[in-house]
Amino acid sequence: MTLELVSSTKAFDGVQQRYRHFSETLDCTMHFAIFLPPMAERMDREPQLPALYWLSGLTCTDENFSQKAGAQRMAAELGIALVIPDTSPRGEQVADDENYDLGQGAGFYLNATRDPWQHHYRMYDYVLEELPALVEQQFPLNGRRAIAGHSMGGHGALVLGLRNPDRFSSISAFSPICNPSDCPWGEKAFSSYLGTKREEWEAYDASRLIEGATEHLPILISQGDDDEFLQRELKPQVLQAAAEAADYPVKIEHHAGYDHSYYFIATFIEQHLRFHADFLLKP
Amino acid sequence: MTLELVSSTKAFDGVQQRYRHFSETLDCTMHFAIFLPPMAERMDREPQLPALYWLSGLTCTDENFSQKAGAQRMAAELGIALVIPDTSPRGEQVADDENYDLGQGAGFYLNATRDPWQHHYRMYDYVLEELPALVEQQFPLNGRRAIAGHSMGGHGALVLGLRNPDRFSSISAFSPICNPSDCPWGEKAFSSYLGTKREEWEAYDASRLIEGATEHLPILISQGDDDEFLQRELKPQVLQAAAEAADYPVKIEHHAGYDHSYYFIATFIEQHLRFHADFLLKP
Repeated sequence: MTLELVSSTKAFDGVQQRYRHFSETLDCTMHFAIFLPPMAERMDREPQLPALYWLSGLTCTDENFSQKAGAQRMAAELGIALVIPDTSPRGEQVADDENYDLGQGAGFYLNATRDPWQHHYRMYDYVLEELPALVEQQFPLNGRRAIAGHSMGGHGALVLGLRNPDRFSSISAFSPICNPSDCPWGEKAFSSYLGTKREEWEAYDASRLIEGATEHLPILISQGDDDEFLQRELKPQVLQAAAEAADYPVKIEHHAGYDHSYYFIATFIEQHLRFHADFLLKP
Repeated sequence: MTLELVSSTKAFDGVQQRYRHFSETLDCTMHFAIFLPPMAERMDREPQLPALYWLSGLTCTDENFSQKAGAQRMAAELGIALVIPDTSPRGEQVADDENYDLGQGAGFYLNATRDPWQHHYRMYDYVLEELPALVEQQFPLNGRRAIAGHSMGGHGALVLGLRNPDRFSSISAFSPICNPSDCPWGEKAFSSYLGTKREEWEAYDASRLIEGATEHLPILISQGDDDEFLQRELKPQVLQAAAEAADYPVKIEHHAGYDHSYYFIATFIEQHLRFHADFLLKP
């Protein structure tokens, strides 16, 4: 596994880096970003860092969260690394679609089973297996992981976390697509990537997965009330009802006046990082 | 003066807005951004807000600082409005150049005196007169102003502040062009906008202006030691020497490892906002 450093920038006394590597899982060249908090003081007593994996939304790359969320400040203070993958496989040889909500930039954190998608579109395996193995080999990470994301990435964080409670300490999401089996974005993506048998969609639908969850990870969800996608695409009320039926405690916070943008994320990212820190840094 | 609201987004319990208006000074349509901190608690005792004017660097619009600096968090906490103009006049009828460092996106915060620039390129007057008059009429601002900026905008902040100590309480700059009369960016811009008589450049050169300053505003400058433009374009040592010769106290802080990017700004913007708050909020 060869990592090529694309850029390295000091930030908050830590370092924000961007890397390129060839992903075996996705069979294409990928970029990801990582923020490493200042290590100097930590090296004596605890050289190994926990990591928060951040999954971005439709049309994003690793750069949106890196540049707009302001997460590095608290990550530096708390001593948490940030690992920020791209949102889909990339490249000229990778299947794409002219719309923003399918194909490149819209991987939906699943393993596709239909052509022309199934060869490259395996973001579920990439984020769950290949990327953590890579960064935990290359950087001073201790294998403690939390997962978070925004919109499509919030869906990804919930799905990956709910299906793999042994791999993550905690889950959080901003404005997640909570019930992709029953919203336009999700139905379009799932029918293309997974085919039209709806029972095969359930493995990627947080509102279905939460019903069968046996282990309960801490979950925090932040949702703006002025989010233009709230009713049509996000549907946190469906997840909330499913969680209550399953007796799974999920903290869903509604914030008056906030929309779907990175300004919303920037406002509450400190809260999310502190939430994850409680579990990531627990002795 | 008609203001057209382009966007309005809640952030840190305040509001980040973008406006379009026709500028008489620049004779073109301009965009600017404003962040208004939460007012609810302040309304009883002090409804009027001081403002920090932020001037951005080459190639930027109002959006770079708005989205990448993370300044709204501290501005909200301190109760300071942020006023963020564009970096030049804009539009098809406005003279331009194919290079990034001249023409649109590169106004250098001066009043041009040469064709084809002199008709529209009057950013000095726009930032000093028209924009404050406009925003102080339209928003709950109290007329207390500080000025700050980055790179070309750091030059602008120093020049506007040094020439108008009655208009600003304090000046700060990240990685400013300190001696534009003697660096490639500045010489190219000044010879184009102002002509080749170098004595006419002095009114826009902080290192010359500081020599003649009779009133001493507080000045804070932050400079990264790994800034790729440090030696060739920025030259803080020239400003420092001129300030020392003039007995003008200027705080220039050098930060090891930091570069010219917005990650550097994001890291130290809290310090700059607290610096300005000491003067903007003084009874």
